Amino acid sequence: MSLRKFILILPVLVASLFNSQKLENLVKFVNPIIGTEKMGHTYPGATVPFGAVQLSPETDTLSYEVKGKYNPDVYKYCAGYRYEDKTIVGFSHTHFSGTGHSDLGDFLIMPTTGKLKLNPGTAQNPGSGFRSRFSHQNEKAEAGYYKVKLDDSNILAELTATTRVGFHQYTFPKSDDAHIILDLMSGIYNYDDKNVWTYVRIENDRRITGYRQTNGWARTRTVYFAMEFSRPFKSYGQKNFDSKQAYRGFWRKWNQDENFPEIAGKKIRMHFDFDTLDNEKIQIKFAISPVSQANALENLQKETPDWNFDNVKNQAQNNWNKELSKIVVNTLNDDDKVNFYTAMYHTFINPTTYMDINGEYKGLDQNVHQAKDFTNYTTFSLWDTYRALHPFFNIIQPKRNNDMIKSMLAHYNQFSLKMLPVWSHYANENWCMSGYHSVSLIADAIVKGTYTGNPEEALKACITTSSKRNYEGIGEYIDKGYISAEKNGTSVSNTLEYAYDDWAIAQIAKKLGKTDIYNEYLKRSENWKNVFDKSIGFMRPRLSDGSFKKEFDLLSTHGQGFIEGNSWNYSFFVPHNPNGLMDAMGGKKKFSENLDQLFTMHLPDEFFADTEDITREGIIGGYVHGNEPAHHVAYLYNVAGQPWKTQSQIRKILEMQYKAKPDGLGGNDDCGQMSAWYIFSSLGFYPVSPGSDEYQIGSPSVKNATLNLENGKSFEIEAKNQSDKNVYIEKIELNGKAIKDFTIRHQDIMNGGKLTFYMTDKPKK
Amino acid sequence: MSLRKFILILPVLVASLFNSQKLENLVKFVNPIIGTEKMGHTYPGATVPFGAVQLSPETDTLSYEVKGKYNPDVYKYCAGYRYEDKTIVGFSHTHFSGTGHSDLGDFLIMPTTGKLKLNPGTAQNPGSGFRSRFSHQNEKAEAGYYKVKLDDSNILAELTATTRVGFHQYTFPKSDDAHIILDLMSGIYNYDDKNVWTYVRIENDRRITGYRQTNGWARTRTVYFAMEFSRPFKSYGQKNFDSKQAYRGFWRKWNQDENFPEIAGKKIRMHFDFDTLDNEKIQIKFAISPVSQANALENLQKETPDWNFDNVKNQAQNNWNKELSKIVVNTLNDDDKVNFYTAMYHTFINPTTYMDINGEYKGLDQNVHQAKDFTNYTTFSLWDTYRALHPFFNIIQPKRNNDMIKSMLAHYNQFSLKMLPVWSHYANENWCMSGYHSVSLIADAIVKGTYTGNPEEALKACITTSSKRNYEGIGEYIDKGYISAEKNGTSVSNTLEYAYDDWAIAQIAKKLGKTDIYNEYLKRSENWKNVFDKSIGFMRPRLSDGSFKKEFDLLSTHGQGFIEGNSWNYSFFVPHNPNGLMDAMGGKKKFSENLDQLFTMHLPDEFFADTEDITREGIIGGYVHGNEPAHHVAYLYNVAGQPWKTQSQIRKILEMQYKAKPDGLGGNDDCGQMSAWYIFSSLGFYPVSPGSDEYQIGSPSVKNATLNLENGKSFEIEAKNQSDKNVYIEKIELNGKAIKDFTIRHQDIMNGGKLTFYMTDKPKK
Repeated sequence: MSLRKFILILPVLVASLFNSQKLENLVKFVNPIIGTEKMGHTYPGATVPFGAVQLSPETDTLSYEVKGKYNPDVYKYCAGYRYEDKTIVGFSHTHFSGTGHSDLGDFLIMPTTGKLKLNPGTAQNPGSGFRSRFSHQNEKAEAGYYKVKLDDSNILAELTATTRVGFHQYTFPKSDDAHIILDLMSGIYNYDDKNVWTYVRIENDRRITGYRQTNGWARTRTVYFAMEFSRPFKSYGQKNFDSKQAYRGFWRKWNQDENFPEIAGKKIRMHFDFDTLDNEKIQIKFAISPVSQANALENLQKETPDWNFDNVKNQAQNNWNKELSKIVVNTLNDDDKVNFYTAMYHTFINPTTYMDINGEYKGLDQNVHQAKDFTNYTTFSLWDTYRALHPFFNIIQPKRNNDMIKSMLAHYNQFSLKMLPVWSHYANENWCMSGYHSVSLIADAIVKGTYTGNPEEALKACITTSSKRNYEGIGEYIDKGYISAEKNGTSVSNTLEYAYDDWAIAQIAKKLGKTDIYNEYLKRSENWKNVFDKSIGFMRPRLSDGSFKKEFDLLSTHGQGFIEGNSWNYSFFVPHNPNGLMDAMGGKKKFSENLDQLFTMHLPDEFFADTEDITREGIIGGYVHGNEPAHHVAYLYNVAGQPWKTQSQIRKILEMQYKAKPDGLGGNDDCGQMSAWYIFSSLGFYPVSPGSDEYQIGSPSVKNATLNLENGKSFEIEAKNQSDKNVYIEKIELNGKAIKDFTIRHQDIMNGGKLTFYMTDKPKK
Repeated sequence: MSLRKFILILPVLVASLFNSQKLENLVKFVNPIIGTEKMGHTYPGATVPFGAVQLSPETDTLSYEVKGKYNPDVYKYCAGYRYEDKTIVGFSHTHFSGTGHSDLGDFLIMPTTGKLKLNPGTAQNPGSGFRSRFSHQNEKAEAGYYKVKLDDSNILAELTATTRVGFHQYTFPKSDDAHIILDLMSGIYNYDDKNVWTYVRIENDRRITGYRQTNGWARTRTVYFAMEFSRPFKSYGQKNFDSKQAYRGFWRKWNQDENFPEIAGKKIRMHFDFDTLDNEKIQIKFAISPVSQANALENLQKETPDWNFDNVKNQAQNNWNKELSKIVVNTLNDDDKVNFYTAMYHTFINPTTYMDINGEYKGLDQNVHQAKDFTNYTTFSLWDTYRALHPFFNIIQPKRNNDMIKSMLAHYNQFSLKMLPVWSHYANENWCMSGYHSVSLIADAIVKGTYTGNPEEALKACITTSSKRNYEGIGEYIDKGYISAEKNGTSVSNTLEYAYDDWAIAQIAKKLGKTDIYNEYLKRSENWKNVFDKSIGFMRPRLSDGSFKKEFDLLSTHGQGFIEGNSWNYSFFVPHNPNGLMDAMGGKKKFSENLDQLFTMHLPDEFFADTEDITREGIIGGYVHGNEPAHHVAYLYNVAGQPWKTQSQIRKILEMQYKAKPDGLGGNDDCGQMSAWYIFSSLGFYPVSPGSDEYQIGSPSVKNATLNLENGKSFEIEAKNQSDKNVYIEKIELNGKAIKDFTIRHQDIMNGGKLTFYMTDKPKK
């Protein structure tokens, strides 16, 4: 190496040295079980940071439909696993983390012993099928590792993963009748015709390839796989549960049920049979690909060349430690530390890698593309994650965040509709939730200097997306400045979200010096005023004739023009112009009284029943933390000149809404948004309006923290006199210099340095 | 160019000069309508030699099922078009030629005017849907070109094609309500769930891409397309006939029925709307690909860069002339010439090209492969075509035949079952009919020096295929030397076909000097003796205990151990050892008496009803020419020392079974096998046992013929004193030297030279 070259990479070397010095075992503070009970909708299984494979147990897979109608209980199984359940049906390879709607659950694997059963059986009568009872005493979930004892078969199941490969290890009892089931019918949010096609090819007595093609939340989705056993099976077979397929065609010349290597159909379950010695381990490598079986096999061979479960597990946990150590914290107690690193873990699960090891992925145009100079990601739950997750990435994962934006722009370019993602997974737009919040990510990354692509092209994509007149009232919104209640069920929340998004677009235009566009979108960003009813001082559905809807209840969510929130929560949703909102509401006093009322009111049961995806514990007064629209609201006291109220509320929310136990999340984790809120808030600041480089100061709950930045710098946070009671801030210093306005700027962090909080138990009014 | 290089390519130049000199307009003698009435199952539409696209009208598309049961009428629509019908439902892009079972019919296009109708309507009431009446007066079918007037809409439809692109030209009347329908539900051998998925992407106001994925005769098949209009449509829309799909997912946020560019589902019909001037032509280029939409688009752009229908048509017909002129004949009358060139046309339709212009294709392993140094073909109807079509190609299309064998070996290598094709299309084995006749093609090409690949690998594939104990009785056949009647419905014909195929494998082994294999397979080739009942002198089903089946009728086909033939026809099926058969039957006299009886007997109606895929006219006495098993039988008189009977029978079959009219074929053309029989026989010789280099002499019906061989040589055939009555041969000379044994050898032809027949009206006994 030349000296010049050495000098060029010196900062990288120093940074990695620095990072490796920090590599303490933080994995031990991660508890993936948190959020698996009640409403968190997280999964306990094995994945690596931003991995394409999420190998996790399914405790049940309810059908999305019962007798052709939507089954309202199905959402409980968004992540496949519920802590409350007593049986496991198997281990599948793809899961969402914390969503409130679902899909995936591909390629369920289940080891069994004894008489072969090719149906899952019922939770009430697990012996009627291949499922097994289990208990939490015999279960262990770590970052990158999961194990459980299957009581009915006496098999120990262990799971770990690489980015694209799930690695299974099953320790069998002695048996001459052991089986490993590969269920191609099983799926999350399943229904009778969800599989449009599946295909399996037995390549030899250890290797299987194939694919599963589904029509679900992702309308047109195929996942290919390559699977290898650590030792040959003695025999194998399948059952095709599609009675129609049997009589057509001449494949019936064969007995396809036993040892037949070429299987295709819609409803297939396969079994592979073994004789096992006592304590014999059978391992499985299971790689997936969005492109082809050949790519899946390449993923398998390159990511898991050896048969060493412990190595793969160690590598997975090292990867986790590397990511987790990007923030090193000291907390008041262990639970806080567990909450912190479990939140870190949950934020680094999504978005997920969506390309093969050779860079290929299938795009929305159904063609295969090569990702050039970036990692292509999917699983964008943007209505949730634009708020805090991606701003968090802009600090701690800027390279990945940049690649995520490139992935969104690839989505835009490949999509016939020419729209940035709303909620996308596996090169599919599923149109879940509202707004066009991709623009917020782009604005935030451009304003903060993270985005390295062509900003003009990015701006164009934002403008095109925000001009789709046929989508969710955008046409009327452009023409009238609001969406009328008769025409759209979520007319108010849509109007408010568009207004914020438009402000974000204006920030890009400002940065690029495009004054006309800036002015146009800044004007659009004031549209929140059009659904603000001055007579009552709250947001309110408006009719197309300009009048406000008469039948209206501030507490009600449904039929009032909102989604996942009532007027009380959404009335504060002007993150880009809180001062304007404060004025509209009647000034500082009235504004802070409204905030007080929100946090102290009682939400009657009839209205709680209306909320979605949260538990009763997900609510503080009328403030719904379990859903996202009010996530910034506690920080608005700063604007009203009452920062001590922000401070106490933040500490209260941190304490009440995040607990180190299975039901510790008061609402869906929503692909890391709830967790990102936790991380920001526990560090003492929050991005109230992504697209601005400003963070509002709250009240840190950590004792101290070091942010190890990708640029090699570090940013330290210290909370002097920290305690459970000292939730108020006496004073704040940035690199020794006092901060008076309760804000810090992005560059303050990225430059490295130190933020010092002096905590006290008395509000500093 | 260096002199040396010039000299090297001189033979090629001379050959092409030679060929171009011969390029007279032979297309005018091709009549694609022949075989479209009754049982021929040919299609009248546009295709180029061995083209991937077969763009042809559908007069109806019956369902394969009625109320969940097989519909026995469906086979009438194997080619989509029946001359008997009065209405056309549209023009689709893929068709088989002359099969007795079917699939395909992808991407039906129909132009209409007036009120939009998105269902096809019924033949009885065409106005109830988008179909139109037509009449044969307004119809013209040529090689590479088809046109028809659609009476209901007053639209002139014209079709032509390149290898991978269908080119449509519709001349509209003046209309402000003109439509072009793209029906993704329509298909041949259709049923309710045949489409597993379809996808359409409107790229812009002229270009559409997408795919259709089916579960049919090809179990797992996807065809991608790219489509372009010559001018922009003014609007477009779709109807999704799958009611289930509507309520699931959030795509319902959009109105997907009108001008929505992203369509997916199982039951989709689309329409594109135009205003048309009187006589305005709207053209469509429609490319297909087995790999992707991107490849389809590349095929479209490279094969049809311009919007000139006449150029594409001329190019298609030039290609046909080039292929047709490989044999230039003079005949006794125009009908004979039409029959001859229509037969040539039908032989050059299948197998079909199965790869994109960039060489990519999807293999049986579901991965994308690149064809290296060969053209990959599909549509192998081998039970039919091993007999005469591929031997014909060994003379007149040796390069293509070599590539076809390479394609079959690619199939073998990519197939988990490791079997050579039985009946394959679109990288799918459909297991239609019996035997493992791929080995015959390989033996014939190796023996005749056509095959350029590794013969050891080819032999290995043949041996592996013939060793599949679980397939159609092969295990028992190997163990016992025959298949028993209790275990297999076609025990006798399977045994006979395997015995011939085994002889073919022995020929490969012989050529490679593998004595052990030669001996083993030669022994297997004698297994025909095990189903020959000496007590009656005919083939007869045998039970596993060694006894012959008691309830037996020589005339019956079904339940007697045969497929598409009775014992009378199959008892002559020992093509590789006719002398042995003659001995078994009792010697020359008895053998020739049996042959006499076959050609003169009366087949009672009850037994005719049992035959498949043929008309009453497809039978001469008890000889069934409309099916294949007896295609060599008329040549067996030579073996019995009565060549004059071969001569008269051949001329009789040529005259009776091939007529220059819509119902001119007495049975399914079977992907060119019937036509190849015609060409060989009308030239005066026939490959009785492919895998041997010997041809049996029959009686030519042409006056003279020149075979322009790929090696640059030419082989001339002259029948002196030829007439309808002079069906007998006085003498034969090869290059002036008398032939006495009524055989010629392959090399005699390939060396170039002249075969002279001296015809007479008197049998020369």
